[in-house]
Amino acid sequence: MSKIRVISGGVTSAKGFRAAGVPAEIKYKGRNDVALIVADAPCAAAAVFTTNQVAAAPVLYDREIVKGGKIQAILANSGCANACTGEEGLKDAKLSALVTAGEFGIDPKYVLVASTGVIGRRLPLDRLLAGMKAAKQALGTTAEHGLNAEKAVMTTDTKPKQACVTTTIGGKKVTVGGMSKGSGMIEPNMATMLGFITTDAAITPAMIKRALKLAIAKSFNRLVVDGDESTNDSVFLLASGAAGNAVITQGGADFDAFREALEAVCISLARQMATDGEGATKFVTVTVKGAKSEKDAARAARAVAKSPLAKTSWFGRDPNWGRVLAAVGYSGATVVDMKAEVFYDKVWAFTCGKIADEKQLAKLAEVMKKDAFEVVVDLHLGEGESSIYTCDFSLDYVHINADYTT
Amino acid sequence: MSKIRVISGGVTSAKGFRAAGVPAEIKYKGRNDVALIVADAPCAAAAVFTTNQVAAAPVLYDREIVKGGKIQAILANSGCANACTGEEGLKDAKLSALVTAGEFGIDPKYVLVASTGVIGRRLPLDRLLAGMKAAKQALGTTAEHGLNAEKAVMTTDTKPKQACVTTTIGGKKVTVGGMSKGSGMIEPNMATMLGFITTDAAITPAMIKRALKLAIAKSFNRLVVDGDESTNDSVFLLASGAAGNAVITQGGADFDAFREALEAVCISLARQMATDGEGATKFVTVTVKGAKSEKDAARAARAVAKSPLAKTSWFGRDPNWGRVLAAVGYSGATVVDMKAEVFYDKVWAFTCGKIADEKQLAKLAEVMKKDAFEVVVDLHLGEGESSIYTCDFSLDYVHINADYTT
Repeated sequence: MSKIRVISGGVTSAKGFRAAGVPAEIKYKGRNDVALIVADAPCAAAAVFTTNQVAAAPVLYDREIVKGGKIQAILANSGCANACTGEEGLKDAKLSALVTAGEFGIDPKYVLVASTGVIGRRLPLDRLLAGMKAAKQALGTTAEHGLNAEKAVMTTDTKPKQACVTTTIGGKKVTVGGMSKGSGMIEPNMATMLGFITTDAAITPAMIKRALKLAIAKSFNRLVVDGDESTNDSVFLLASGAAGNAVITQGGADFDAFREALEAVCISLARQMATDGEGATKFVTVTVKGAKSEKDAARAARAVAKSPLAKTSWFGRDPNWGRVLAAVGYSGATVVDMKAEVFYDKVWAFTCGKIADEKQLAKLAEVMKKDAFEVVVDLHLGEGESSIYTCDFSLDYVHINADYTT
Repeated sequence: MSKIRVISGGVTSAKGFRAAGVPAEIKYKGRNDVALIVADAPCAAAAVFTTNQVAAAPVLYDREIVKGGKIQAILANSGCANACTGEEGLKDAKLSALVTAGEFGIDPKYVLVASTGVIGRRLPLDRLLAGMKAAKQALGTTAEHGLNAEKAVMTTDTKPKQACVTTTIGGKKVTVGGMSKGSGMIEPNMATMLGFITTDAAITPAMIKRALKLAIAKSFNRLVVDGDESTNDSVFLLASGAAGNAVITQGGADFDAFREALEAVCISLARQMATDGEGATKFVTVTVKGAKSEKDAARAARAVAKSPLAKTSWFGRDPNWGRVLAAVGYSGATVVDMKAEVFYDKVWAFTCGKIADEKQLAKLAEVMKKDAFEVVVDLHLGEGESSIYTCDFSLDYVHINADYTT
């Protein structure tokens, strides 16, 4: 990991990529809602999509296209998810890809599309394609261009989310940069999130796919906002090869270096998404260790991260370890309550039957004031350990989701 | 079902039972928090408890006691759950049962205890037992006595929950009455709820157990408030036999008549609990039909009922069928979105790809204003059908749970 350097940047940081984001009135006036990410040539590419059986049209379309392993352009929009729109929605997705390909004079098999926003509305194709053409005119390689693209995919996000690192592979400097959107409905596997990652590493489609899956397992799939899972989640990774390293064709030091850089970007984006969870006032890492198995640890951590009672207690600054242990208790993981410990950061709240007294509660009160803390449950039953990134459940979460749509 | 008559009443309605509720300062001053339900003689009895691995001391204690199949008295308290209190908590539970038995001069094997409230605090035994003695003095058979007992087990409940029906078994009038508490953390299997049901039917312990399991499957286990599951959930059923019917020893018409009466009481209590869900402004029945199997229907209905996004949309009066379908999509149930329909009461919002237009939205807006409605998802894939009782997710849910405890 020592070779990795974190820098500021996003999808335009790696060599070989241009991006743009423009306003096209997909749903609202006066905000960016159409983005383009375009590579100088077809890139090795991979993508991972939602497992929701109700998958949006762009997901259904992209799943087929990405099998080719080479992608040059991605057209994305916010304001309309193009989900639950049936055959017509699928035609809309395809048509927007075809027109984009035509505009750039490239083969449609190199073009992906991504949508996010309200479910059950048809894409306003005329405005989307006008936006695509305007975005084409606006393409560029600066950080500003990357930021504009990111702004165009945001929905209830309050902050743009970008991450970038450099590393060295075979003596060459390689850059991996990305952007993502998603603040509600984020749950493994990747609900209502879109992620776009570009790199100038030279790597085969097969290896890029493997690297992406590994990175997602350690980042986006460890993210819980509200436990809902969306119809549109997609993470895209494009590699231009412009860094000039020897093409990564198999596992080994080069692959590991690439994977680590990619993971660093994905984890950063995932953390930014939890921090910006709808209405979130706190970023919380839930770690369960000492579980009988890693699977037990993961299901227990997820149950705590999804528990409305635990989440509201964090919002209320209440070190309510009882709700945490109750969630572990119904998670399906093996737990013996009198062997368990619950910590907030490194301060214990419950330890093998011993309950925090006034003095300990005062220490806990300090932790609960923080904007970010870790809830650690040690089950003392084995070696299994797993962490989930999440946030609290606030009044604003309800405001945001009661008022969104219609 | 035709023989069943709904009457007002609760745990004191059936012949052979007395009840009381008194203030004992378990946690707060000036409110009932200790209840007693006492039968004139040992009753055929059954109970069902939480499946949470972190089970409270009274649950651990009662599980053993109830195996005897005969119970004469139940001591219950609110304000302290006696959960995560280890060996000492278990001793407290046992001691309170023993002292109660001694006070009534009955065998401790006939005495159950139940607690609800904050997790991780020891029971204040002196106050609990003083309360038990005061309650003994206050015992009586009137509706007022039943209501006082109910008030003593309420926590964040805003309304007392009681239900009572009469039926005819073998020419004899039989009464089944009950009370319950629970408004948050209510989820199958029966989280943070306590239910107490009494009947004067004559029935064996084996058959009462069977009837209770069947009734719970159709009532409390179809209830979702927030998806959390508690450490203390218990439902108790005591049958005095005072109605004088021929003892029900096996399946048949008499058993069915009893079972139906019991179900009616349990379903009424479950509905009252959903209506009184923490912060709830709406009672919502989620029905999934046309599923490939009943299991599919149940998991899909549960996913919708648990979805924070669906629940907040109900609070916001938004007929957001997209969130409903998305939840079905990640539930694990088989779904083909273009074959599915979503209704609010009998008004469609989405039907096989067709989306509500302005005129339809106006009709939906009328449904969404109601205090109670049904969300129906018809998957058109088979015969599976299942319903869940739930409520919306409001600002007050967050208020209540952010402010409760410490």
